[in-house]
Amino acid sequence: MNTLENEVIRVISKPTGIPAAENFRLEKEPVPELQPGQIRVRNEWLSVDPAMRGWLADANNYASVNVGDVMRSLCVGTVVESNVSTVSEGERLMGWFGWQTCATVKPEAIVQKITASDLPPSLYLGVLGLNGITAATALDKLGSPEPGDTVVVSTAAGGVGSCVGQLAKTMGCRTVGLTSSPEKVKACYEAFGYDHVINYKTDDIDQALKNACPDGVDVYFDNTAGTISDSVMPHLAIGARVIVCGTASIPSWDPPPMGPRVNRILLTRRARMQGFILFDHKDTYASYVEQLEQLVRDKKLTYREHITDGLLTRPVPLPSCIAVKTWASD
Amino acid sequence: MNTLENEVIRVISKPTGIPAAENFRLEKEPVPELQPGQIRVRNEWLSVDPAMRGWLADANNYASVNVGDVMRSLCVGTVVESNVSTVSEGERLMGWFGWQTCATVKPEAIVQKITASDLPPSLYLGVLGLNGITAATALDKLGSPEPGDTVVVSTAAGGVGSCVGQLAKTMGCRTVGLTSSPEKVKACYEAFGYDHVINYKTDDIDQALKNACPDGVDVYFDNTAGTISDSVMPHLAIGARVIVCGTASIPSWDPPPMGPRVNRILLTRRARMQGFILFDHKDTYASYVEQLEQLVRDKKLTYREHITDGLLTRPVPLPSCIAVKTWASD
Repeated sequence: MNTLENEVIRVISKPTGIPAAENFRLEKEPVPELQPGQIRVRNEWLSVDPAMRGWLADANNYASVNVGDVMRSLCVGTVVESNVSTVSEGERLMGWFGWQTCATVKPEAIVQKITASDLPPSLYLGVLGLNGITAATALDKLGSPEPGDTVVVSTAAGGVGSCVGQLAKTMGCRTVGLTSSPEKVKACYEAFGYDHVINYKTDDIDQALKNACPDGVDVYFDNTAGTISDSVMPHLAIGARVIVCGTASIPSWDPPPMGPRVNRILLTRRARMQGFILFDHKDTYASYVEQLEQLVRDKKLTYREHITDGLLTRPVPLPSCIAVKTWASD
Repeated sequence: MNTLENEVIRVISKPTGIPAAENFRLEKEPVPELQPGQIRVRNEWLSVDPAMRGWLADANNYASVNVGDVMRSLCVGTVVESNVSTVSEGERLMGWFGWQTCATVKPEAIVQKITASDLPPSLYLGVLGLNGITAATALDKLGSPEPGDTVVVSTAAGGVGSCVGQLAKTMGCRTVGLTSSPEKVKACYEAFGYDHVINYKTDDIDQALKNACPDGVDVYFDNTAGTISDSVMPHLAIGARVIVCGTASIPSWDPPPMGPRVNRILLTRRARMQGFILFDHKDTYASYVEQLEQLVRDKKLTYREHITDGLLTRPVPLPSCIAVKTWASD
């Protein structure tokens, strides 16, 4: 018999706006007997991501979460028991283990094994997790940046954008960040090393882009769509690459909102505009993690974490894009 | 002294709508002495292309033609005199020789040497010229078609589109053509071998696309933009490639017309939308000509020509996309 107890946060109602503590309930449950083909992971870090809002709200989302489910999340934890030959007790994993202290899962839930012991495990939910690997993979494979290229990033101070800006710098590019507050402008310059930062709420964005990108935009890493992108598109250089990574500025796509047609820009600039979802690039995930691990060690990749201790005792509202330790006392 | 006389059509006024005979004048001029670095070409075939409308109308076009100029056009002719070591008398060339019987030009005017003697020279202004090579290059390099892919072509019966449809068939794709009249629908099925043809003026295009593309559109070769493309975009398959080759349905881009935003479609389908201009692909021009020559010989590539005899005595209105022999009597 297993003597472990699982503390688990289940969804008890669907949020109408931003999810809040009332949509969840903390329960204590006995841990089930481990079946063949299963592993047991003791979670150390849980993530709270903006994407969770979509999982909770939208029944047709690629990863919907229903009432009664353990809240879906990426986690970092250590294997405490394994009935799978490729996974050993004591290994540290990042994967889809959910908001609970003790996850009993199949190996398909694993995103990666964490082998580096010199880096904080929480990074694998941020700069070495989906945010950083999305930035690295999309910039590299879709953006194809060359030294001297001008790279423009929307949501420049965000989890993905801040990483894009820094990675582009390591590749010898000029980086231009678009963001929305004086604090974020400051962070873009000081923490993330952008060459130019534009506050799209207060600056004349068209003129600012002209000044910052006199030879045009070679790579536009777009997390927003909408009017921000409308401002960038006319500045594309010949052969530009536009990475469509998110559409954060558009609240609803049904019906599709109208905007300036992009065809003529794409044609005359021979530009490429392409959608990116990380799950299409599983084969290269581990190699990008290795690259970013080394950049973090070399202090060439800075990150900001919002860490809250004890999600399981004090549920936090979403979205906030943070790593969360499982126990207040731990 | 040179005894050749040149018959030349010069632009005498800018057209306001479709160019007409009154915008041109036929003149007879003595042929100049050939200078070092020049070649003399006796034109045999001249082209009349829709693009000429833009060259004549728009001062900022990439190839504007001004009052007083010899009308710019692609031509097929034979070298009658050469002061260039790489070009020999008797060679047949396709190039920018203009509407005249005898062109005195530098070698930069040459697009290609025509070495095949078994094919009609006029083809090098159509299916083996910019139309065909645009179709082949863009489909291959930007469309990356795979056997079994569904390829949708707008202006399916046109000079470029008809070639795209046939080339996609040779690559093992299912082809769906969009066109605008019963005659063109017939041509698409009978001459160009499309699997499905949609008359976008009379059919329910959304339903027709659903029926014709049950697994979605893998490649969309777009010569139109506008509402026709708006109908196609929601049918894109995961990983689709959209080739932006022309924007024929949009009369003006200043200011840019509005349409449904495409970002979410590109994102969720991980689709790529890319502009194409043939002049970026000069290095592979000759190899695509060779491929298409063989397809024409093998009767796997059908073409339609509109041939008018004697442009120099009876100027024709533009645009009409035809090859024209230089002399009525020739």
